[in-house]
Amino acid sequence: MLFNIVKTDGNARACIIETARGKIETPVFMPVGTLGAVKAVSPDELKEVGAEIILCNTYHIYLRPGHNVVSSLGGIHKFMNWDRPILTDSGGFQVFSLSALRKIEENGVHFKSHIDGSMHFIGPKEAMDIQSLLGSDIAMVLDDCTPYPSSFEYAQESLERTIKWAAECKGLQKTGQALFGIVQGSLFDNLRRKCAEEIVEMGFDGYAAGGLSVGEPKEEMHKMVYFTAPLLPVDKPRYLMGIGDLKDVLVGVEAGFDMFDCVMPTRNARNGTLFTSRGRISIKREEFRSDRKPLDPDCRCYTCRNYSRGYLRHIFLSKEILSMRLNTIHNLHFYFNFFRDMRKSVIEGNFTEFKSKWEAIL
Amino acid sequence: MLFNIVKTDGNARACIIETARGKIETPVFMPVGTLGAVKAVSPDELKEVGAEIILCNTYHIYLRPGHNVVSSLGGIHKFMNWDRPILTDSGGFQVFSLSALRKIEENGVHFKSHIDGSMHFIGPKEAMDIQSLLGSDIAMVLDDCTPYPSSFEYAQESLERTIKWAAECKGLQKTGQALFGIVQGSLFDNLRRKCAEEIVEMGFDGYAAGGLSVGEPKEEMHKMVYFTAPLLPVDKPRYLMGIGDLKDVLVGVEAGFDMFDCVMPTRNARNGTLFTSRGRISIKREEFRSDRKPLDPDCRCYTCRNYSRGYLRHIFLSKEILSMRLNTIHNLHFYFNFFRDMRKSVIEGNFTEFKSKWEAIL
Repeated sequence: MLFNIVKTDGNARACIIETARGKIETPVFMPVGTLGAVKAVSPDELKEVGAEIILCNTYHIYLRPGHNVVSSLGGIHKFMNWDRPILTDSGGFQVFSLSALRKIEENGVHFKSHIDGSMHFIGPKEAMDIQSLLGSDIAMVLDDCTPYPSSFEYAQESLERTIKWAAECKGLQKTGQALFGIVQGSLFDNLRRKCAEEIVEMGFDGYAAGGLSVGEPKEEMHKMVYFTAPLLPVDKPRYLMGIGDLKDVLVGVEAGFDMFDCVMPTRNARNGTLFTSRGRISIKREEFRSDRKPLDPDCRCYTCRNYSRGYLRHIFLSKEILSMRLNTIHNLHFYFNFFRDMRKSVIEGNFTEFKSKWEAIL
Repeated sequence: MLFNIVKTDGNARACIIETARGKIETPVFMPVGTLGAVKAVSPDELKEVGAEIILCNTYHIYLRPGHNVVSSLGGIHKFMNWDRPILTDSGGFQVFSLSALRKIEENGVHFKSHIDGSMHFIGPKEAMDIQSLLGSDIAMVLDDCTPYPSSFEYAQESLERTIKWAAECKGLQKTGQALFGIVQGSLFDNLRRKCAEEIVEMGFDGYAAGGLSVGEPKEEMHKMVYFTAPLLPVDKPRYLMGIGDLKDVLVGVEAGFDMFDCVMPTRNARNGTLFTSRGRISIKREEFRSDRKPLDPDCRCYTCRNYSRGYLRHIFLSKEILSMRLNTIHNLHFYFNFFRDMRKSVIEGNFTEFKSKWEAIL
């Protein structure tokens, strides 16, 4: 995996990540394909809106259909018919947030499936084995995602596990799969700094900030984003995990992060909330009943080129499957346009204006 | 609307219907776009599988979003982004089968919406006005769909309404919209004959057999299909309403019918039942868990070109929206292939062999 910085504007960066499955221009948004499908759209549609890399959730795929099944079906790319890069998370975050029961030990986590209640164990070795069998382009180390709020003592104890597990994962990295380290440390500056130092020392292909956007106030999160980015090497990709509200993305890019993922554009689409150049709209609204205009007059996506607000309102209220798809195409197109324009603003040296303009709209 | 018989094989016919929005090669299958969308697929996908005409349900669109809304959004074609022919039913069938309360009078039907319980009335004038505002290429007369079983007396009384309403609809036909008459008469030969005579006398652009596949035994239905077809003019399209099980389609084509519609391929797809050249399969089955083969090795549809049974099983069980779409594409592709091959067999004079071959598989 090669990484080149094309241009910087303050701490904001426009970079290129080159992988065996194609190049990724950053800042980049990664749509979430939880179970091996980005909800409501096809791989062709993802390409059409401009997706260069997607994220899949190891926890979900491990439970269903199972990483061995995916492997026997040719690996995650062939499985889901997506030939561009895929990043897999380690499963840690979902274990912590979804499992009915979880018991954290020094060597990993015992947890109960949210689907059938069966018992499972994931440690660094399991996380690496699963991701290796899936065959993702970028794997993530298993981390202990510290909940909010946590005491300093608990955060420190949790951090020690994150560091220990990172070292174990690093030792198990296979050729041909990039591996990113993760910085935890809750909202404590010195824990974040300590974790970053230790993780960076291990030498990963990229670095992520985890444990943010887990319930803490926005200002606290933003403070920690600005604090963490400079702790990470300049010459490697920086990934702000699970953050994709565009206001937060602007903060992340300003701080120097390159990669983002979030279910927001796809989940909002399915709930009828759509992003436009004039702000969000809810397609349910009565005023759209006989509205012949497209969702966003400035948008050139498939949905806006072919359908009126009136039709989109009707199929949303009628719960047509096509509604979820057309809305998702629109929201993803909006996101990718936003990211392209943001990258352009970095290259042209006017990211600050871009940020101010969009903060007023979002 | 022009109609030409290209070739016959026994009573089976291969014809061409020419409309202002394009030609239709028969025997033709019309996918059902109940609410202005064929469930789970886009108009582009419908074209890719070979759809030349679709059916929309007047009753459903009348209730939601309302024919006036569709009209103000540019008519049904622009509304749903489908520029090929559309046939609308009259709403009669759904009024009879879906409404909680319906009161049939000489002039039409009072009924209660299945959505919000509001009261409505549809008579011949309303049915024609609604279809005219929708702007479909082919409208259907309002008929009184006789339930099964019915006494001779009731069937006769019901038939009188069908004939009276047909005449009224005929008098209200607008230029630019074809209008098909409907033959009712339950399972009584002499009622079917009487109805056909009267309806044909009125001179419609095409003729349909209605009131079949409403609960009667298959053999009775087939008998009536063979009985009714020859009562209809040779030089006009013949439409066997609501029938689309392929075994019944073979009977319909053998009898001399040209047009068919049914929710079967789309509904089955959403339930995970898929048509293949070796018979139906349920994608849920455990044996498909790690199966790398496509649904049907002989199929060249988008789904079979790109996805394994293992993946399709996984996304079906995971309730991914993409599952409904990929399954629907496959089933519709299968149907359209079947219809194309059937047409070819008529043209080549071996429809009988085609029918025997498929009766063994279906």
